Amino acid sequence: MPPPATDDPDLGPALQELGCRAGAELALGGVPASELAARFGTPLYVFDAGVLRQRVAAVRAALGPRVELLWSVKANPSLAVTRCLRLAGAGAEVASLGELHLALAAGHAAGDLRFAGPGKTEAEIHAATALGLGCFHAESEAEIDAIAAAARAGGRRTAVAIRTNLPDELAGSRLRMGGRSSRFGVDADQVPDLLRRFADHADVHLAGLHVYAGTQCFDASAFVRHATSLVEHALRWERDTGVPLDELDLGGGFGIGLYAGDPTFDLAAAGQGIQALVAAHDRPGRRWFVELGRYLAAPAGVYLARVVGTKRSGGERHAVLDGGLHHAAAAAGMGTVLKRAPLLVHAAGLQATALEPVTLGGPLCTPADQFAERLALPPLAPGDLVAVLRAGAYGLSFSPHGFLGHPTPAEVLVGDGPPRLVRRRGDPRDVLRDQTP
Amino acid sequence: MPPPATDDPDLGPALQELGCRAGAELALGGVPASELAARFGTPLYVFDAGVLRQRVAAVRAALGPRVELLWSVKANPSLAVTRCLRLAGAGAEVASLGELHLALAAGHAAGDLRFAGPGKTEAEIHAATALGLGCFHAESEAEIDAIAAAARAGGRRTAVAIRTNLPDELAGSRLRMGGRSSRFGVDADQVPDLLRRFADHADVHLAGLHVYAGTQCFDASAFVRHATSLVEHALRWERDTGVPLDELDLGGGFGIGLYAGDPTFDLAAAGQGIQALVAAHDRPGRRWFVELGRYLAAPAGVYLARVVGTKRSGGERHAVLDGGLHHAAAAAGMGTVLKRAPLLVHAAGLQATALEPVTLGGPLCTPADQFAERLALPPLAPGDLVAVLRAGAYGLSFSPHGFLGHPTPAEVLVGDGPPRLVRRRGDPRDVLRDQTP
Repeated sequence: MPPPATDDPDLGPALQELGCRAGAELALGGVPASELAARFGTPLYVFDAGVLRQRVAAVRAALGPRVELLWSVKANPSLAVTRCLRLAGAGAEVASLGELHLALAAGHAAGDLRFAGPGKTEAEIHAATALGLGCFHAESEAEIDAIAAAARAGGRRTAVAIRTNLPDELAGSRLRMGGRSSRFGVDADQVPDLLRRFADHADVHLAGLHVYAGTQCFDASAFVRHATSLVEHALRWERDTGVPLDELDLGGGFGIGLYAGDPTFDLAAAGQGIQALVAAHDRPGRRWFVELGRYLAAPAGVYLARVVGTKRSGGERHAVLDGGLHHAAAAAGMGTVLKRAPLLVHAAGLQATALEPVTLGGPLCTPADQFAERLALPPLAPGDLVAVLRAGAYGLSFSPHGFLGHPTPAEVLVGDGPPRLVRRRGDPRDVLRDQTP
Repeated sequence: MPPPATDDPDLGPALQELGCRAGAELALGGVPASELAARFGTPLYVFDAGVLRQRVAAVRAALGPRVELLWSVKANPSLAVTRCLRLAGAGAEVASLGELHLALAAGHAAGDLRFAGPGKTEAEIHAATALGLGCFHAESEAEIDAIAAAARAGGRRTAVAIRTNLPDELAGSRLRMGGRSSRFGVDADQVPDLLRRFADHADVHLAGLHVYAGTQCFDASAFVRHATSLVEHALRWERDTGVPLDELDLGGGFGIGLYAGDPTFDLAAAGQGIQALVAAHDRPGRRWFVELGRYLAAPAGVYLARVVGTKRSGGERHAVLDGGLHHAAAAAGMGTVLKRAPLLVHAAGLQATALEPVTLGGPLCTPADQFAERLALPPLAPGDLVAVLRAGAYGLSFSPHGFLGHPTPAEVLVGDGPPRLVRRRGDPRDVLRDQTP
């Protein structure tokens, strides 16, 4: 049997960041989870604007005043979350035309936005250019040609940062994207030729370099080493080609614990390392970027689901929730090879109750729709609420929410005035949307 | 390097079922894939009504006239596909209120439908009852109580089949749901008490038993053995309790090859076994059901995507497509532990061209968005079309289509008159749907 939830060293910090403590009823932005569930229904995503603001402030303080922080919209394409993070001081990088529209609706100026992604079509490049996009993170020579063509058509020179596939791997990260043959970025040995070819180009302005080598990196010194490698490459290429590389985007992927037993990322150490790197190589006109998604948003979000029924089968206790894999795929282990227990609590608190192992599943007709096996929780009864913590990133948007035709959950923002609905709850008839027989 | 695609023994049958052959340009319902892509755009799902009809006819012929075939809407909640399958003679079972609405819109009568799923809420049970649902597949005693309450409120006795968790495992299946402690169904040792309790109940009519023990079962004799076990349990319980169990739903999960190297399910053997079982235990008033999703729909669907760009990195060739994991998650290996190559072809055919290994990825900023590594295909150039075969089930609805904010693909039906759009293509601004800041 896994350790009881109360003993989990990750639950304490996750609760504390929400202003809660183990044993007490879960509250979000000071509002009891039970009240939010009663008012807005379940399943429900709740995002805490206060926590979003704290996250941005903590990261900016760690990175120092010379580094611009970008919110990776892909981590949670919520209009309300993106707006909150903008007001807290984060810029934004987008990965599709859809995310570009969302960032604009959240109040960003197109000229401040950066557009990343390995498969930008000509149509997307033209549309983003027409909207006045600030900078493309280009993934190949052909893409720069397409950007130049769009810029020429639009009559405005467009900035490009070359996403670079450095020979260095980003150690300590869960998903690596660099240091090997990859569709992401331009191999380092091809960059100098590109710089020469597009230097003083009439339609594109080679503004600098971008790197993104992995996600869920829990090793701060490995991140700093990788960023240092980017800077060293940039200095060498500036010297060799004479092309100034003003903008250096060091990537992101700071790790945040999502499952029992996950390590902790040392933000202070990463910040010190980055600040030292920046201080050593700063100059007038240089811009430095770090881009973060999950690290900013995950701790600010909770997924609430209600127990529909409990049963005993084969002598073991099962609880079926009204939410599951279709809304919170990562918490159900989708996309991970080894299933691990998410940070999940009984929302009524963990008072002096005898814990009982329970297997928690959702309403879908698949064994994959399961959050935890034999997790020790206070006894669950129909109507009880459970909460997946650190669910503020790669939640609904990462989940197959059309799977089995259940309505999408509502989303609520707290900590920014009274709790308010920021995504309407789906309707069973939504399955018919956009379809004709 | 994996074997070249042309040598793959699974590609031949998959192409043949679509009326195509390896080496020729892919055509769907007689219309070249290139024409469909030009007219409806990419990425694109294409479903062939002719293949759907053939699948239903073949399964019904194998199972014989006494077995009613049900379409599991969850496998593809397409209104057009569900309508086609109904016209071809398949009933339907649904797993949510959304799917119930979809089946009604596809022309099914509510009284003919069956509603399965382990987490039905009281609200769903009431709504389905009010719509006149034919039969619930109940997963627990508490659920039967809830159905009875809804029936009483609605003033109409409702039929229930008890989903049974038999002690037997379904051997040879990829995902097992029975034969162990499970949230699915009622453990066999608890069924007789339930039968006695609800016999002659005023509000619910215990119509029979349902079993669903696994999916992607490639062992026909194992399926027949498991069905036989259900029948034996039913006969014993009828004898022991005096409650007639008229309706026996034997489940489904017939395997269909989706990846290179998958085995073949012996439909003829399964049909012979089922027909013998039915013949031995038939009687007036008895109804027999088999429910199939993927087995009916997968071979009728193709996912078409266009090459956006190609590049060399680390000496290897990569192609980036305009479609990927967000539309065809199963083909990208999501939900499977071991990644295997999907049945993927160059849509222009495999003429006498030198094959070249290529890694095929989608446009998302994650290494998980990859269909195949070093697959041998004719050289791909920007604009070329590739096709994932057997993509007609657990496609878009099983995929996190909100991930990274790309528009949803259009869906087209062929083989039922001229090709027609049955799901409109998404728009980048769809990310803003249902949201407020």
